[in-house]
Amino acid sequence: RLPLLARFSPPQLIALSFALAILVGGLLLWLPVMHGVNADGTVRPVNFLQALFTATSALCVTGLNVLDPSRDFNRLGQVVIMLLIQVGGLGIITFGTAFALITRRRMAFTERVQVAQQVSALNIGDVRSLIRNIFLYTFVIEGVGALLLAFAFVPRHGLGLGLYYAVFHAVSAFNNAGFALYSDNLMGFVGDPLVSGVIALLIILGGTGFLVQLNVVAHLLNPRRHRLMLHSRLVLSVMAALLAVGTLAYLALEWSNPRTLGPLGFGEKLLASFFQSVTTRTAGFNTLDYGAMTLPTLFVTLILMFIGANPGSTGGGIKTSTFYVIVVSAWSMVLGRRSVNLYGRRIDMDTILRAMTVSLLSLGLIAGMFFLLLLLNTGHPEVQFIHLLFEAISAFATVGLSMNATPLLHPDQHVVLILLMYLGRIGPLTFAVAFSRPDHRDLVRYPAERDILIG
Amino acid sequence: RLPLLARFSPPQLIALSFALAILVGGLLLWLPVMHGVNADGTVRPVNFLQALFTATSALCVTGLNVLDPSRDFNRLGQVVIMLLIQVGGLGIITFGTAFALITRRRMAFTERVQVAQQVSALNIGDVRSLIRNIFLYTFVIEGVGALLLAFAFVPRHGLGLGLYYAVFHAVSAFNNAGFALYSDNLMGFVGDPLVSGVIALLIILGGTGFLVQLNVVAHLLNPRRHRLMLHSRLVLSVMAALLAVGTLAYLALEWSNPRTLGPLGFGEKLLASFFQSVTTRTAGFNTLDYGAMTLPTLFVTLILMFIGANPGSTGGGIKTSTFYVIVVSAWSMVLGRRSVNLYGRRIDMDTILRAMTVSLLSLGLIAGMFFLLLLLNTGHPEVQFIHLLFEAISAFATVGLSMNATPLLHPDQHVVLILLMYLGRIGPLTFAVAFSRPDHRDLVRYPAERDILIG
Ligand SMILES: [K+]
Ligand SMILES: [K+]
Repeated sequence: RLPLLARFSPPQLIALSFALAILVGGLLLWLPVMHGVNADGTVRPVNFLQALFTATSALCVTGLNVLDPSRDFNRLGQVVIMLLIQVGGLGIITFGTAFALITRRRMAFTERVQVAQQVSALNIGDVRSLIRNIFLYTFVIEGVGALLLAFAFVPRHGLGLGLYYAVFHAVSAFNNAGFALYSDNLMGFVGDPLVSGVIALLIILGGTGFLVQLNVVAHLLNPRRHRLMLHSRLVLSVMAALLAVGTLAYLALEWSNPRTLGPLGFGEKLLASFFQSVTTRTAGFNTLDYGAMTLPTLFVTLILMFIGANPGSTGGGIKTSTFYVIVVSAWSMVLGRRSVNLYGRRIDMDTILRAMTVSLLSLGLIAGMFFLLLLLNTGHPEVQFIHLLFEAISAFATVGLSMNATPLLHPDQHVVLILLMYLGRIGPLTFAVAFSRPDHRDLVRYPAERDILIG
Repeated sequence: RLPLLARFSPPQLIALSFALAILVGGLLLWLPVMHGVNADGTVRPVNFLQALFTATSALCVTGLNVLDPSRDFNRLGQVVIMLLIQVGGLGIITFGTAFALITRRRMAFTERVQVAQQVSALNIGDVRSLIRNIFLYTFVIEGVGALLLAFAFVPRHGLGLGLYYAVFHAVSAFNNAGFALYSDNLMGFVGDPLVSGVIALLIILGGTGFLVQLNVVAHLLNPRRHRLMLHSRLVLSVMAALLAVGTLAYLALEWSNPRTLGPLGFGEKLLASFFQSVTTRTAGFNTLDYGAMTLPTLFVTLILMFIGANPGSTGGGIKTSTFYVIVVSAWSMVLGRRSVNLYGRRIDMDTILRAMTVSLLSLGLIAGMFFLLLLLNTGHPEVQFIHLLFEAISAFATVGLSMNATPLLHPDQHVVLILLMYLGRIGPLTFAVAFSRPDHRDLVRYPAERDILIG
């Protein structure tokens, strides 16, 4: 008899465990003991759908909100949200990097060798210690981040509350969750280099992906023995390029907008542009008001959100590697080349096909759900085409940025967003695992590049 | 020494000849002798950009307008527009089906055999007679269409003018051009089964593609000798399915809209829904006001416009075959199949890759041009995100449907739309030709399905 976990396929296990965790989280957050209290002593009302939405947003590390977590939940409720974020984030990283090692059923030989190399690089003996190291790494980074943030939050809120704020925002940032304990998210820190900087750094580390960080650390410790993998070089380059493009776009397109960058000095303009560029992919914090941005900025944001973070990270979207493979492949096709080359190596045809399929399926999913949002729209004058499109892509890519339309939507539309967050989160993960079966044809035919993660 | 035409590659020749024709057409339509006259005898002003836009729209058989062709141009100007439509339409069909035969440089063996089979099926000896037959076929269909339309237009406008209207609209419909001689396009005929029906039939014939029609005719004449090609079965099925889906979508989503289907009886509702479904892909006539439609309808329309008509036809978009190959491939990938099968045959990997590349490049082109439209927007209150997106996709897919925003745009935005119409028209054509090079690898490796046209 197989043990219980082995009876499910990895994709089924991912889908089921996330759904179960969301249900439990939703029930927990539904308890009145979690809810905030008004000045007159009455408990603020939170219905089950709102609790479920919040739990989904936390577990899928999205950050979209129908409620105001700083007021509609009390400290206990907020701690539960923080724990859901942590469970979701660790689950995503663990599933994304170590799941295939545990089941050992569907993993391709080349991928097993690759992960084993990385694991041995840090002297990690077995799967359990790998997972333990993921946890350890996460908590150390979050701890350091919280310590740094305490320098900003303790003077502001006092020791106890300040440390609590520091821990909450460090966890939320490293897991790319986008939840903040202020009603206006982080807009009060638009010119604060400490908070903006530390949060941005945590987001970037969290969005880089564990395997890539493992590879970078191993490479730095022993450059000769552990080469920087093609995958690492690729995602780090794309990440840097997209951060630069995003910063320039926000700077140029919002420069004179009186409701965003307009009133700020040059240094603050630069800081805010960089922060927004970081958070777009796909952390979901904001120090500027996305409801006040110009249409060109919003369109660039839509594209950056759709592309998202690195595979194997807590970030969402179709992933940087997927995007880059698509761009390079399409360009090779335009130039009439028969093969797609990158850093002197040929990209395997299956990788290209997988990247294109992931992108097109993602577009299809967004299109379908966006159509439902349009169909269920109640005609609220502040909720137009662009608002629904923005919230839909933000939900799919688990970004959490909002044009402030989500709270105005119909409960049925909230159900659609819950589905979109869930599918946007488990879809690419499931895909990555489902696709990691051995490809006998390729093993026989030619020595192609296969170690680029897609989805 | 090579003859002049042979010195250019087919893609260069297509791009150059279209650009040249547009320039000549623009100069012609700029002449004051072409322009309409007001009641007080003054000539209506038409600047060069407006003339160029009209020429591009006519030659790329799009139908977007910055002017009102029924008033800003006189009979001479309208005849020039009709001739530009005819030249554009014939050019597209000829380039799309016979170009590779003329140059005989880059065509794959399998494709040459396929076309030769079809050509022999209709007893066409050489390339010149093939082209002659394309022309003959076009004029016969247009003639029959004009004759039928005369039954509606002659009683309305008298013999001379009625015949003129019948010819103009038959040419415009068969070439999927979308130009009409009424200020409200064909909205006056929303309940007219004769005009709506004949125009719809001409659109469908024109949007089917010459090779497919050739194949169908050959098959009907001798079913045993000439099988119905996989490509024909595929595009005819997809076309029928999309027509049905579109009709149902318009019917269901606009049923009670007081500004579109609401006031009509059931029969008229059905006729108008069918007509709009036909015209969306990608003819560009309208009997309903797209500026008055609901957001879900507009979104469905965006998708149908993007998919477009059959390859090798005068319709635009990424094409039905491209869309179908993508859907089937993505679905096979989701199910974890190693190969994509259709009608009991395996789809060649190159075809899949080509379909996905065409789709993603098209999305990229639309995204880039749409960003420019947003950037150049002057903040006109009637021109919002959805309006610009609608006009952009309409221009790319050479549809010509409009949310009535195009005349309100800035001249710089008109330049962007001109570029988009031009690139949307020659892009897929150029791609199709550029991709039709022999693939030695595939000829050696396996006998795969290759006769599905993409783009
Ligand atoms: K997020
Ligand atoms: K058209």
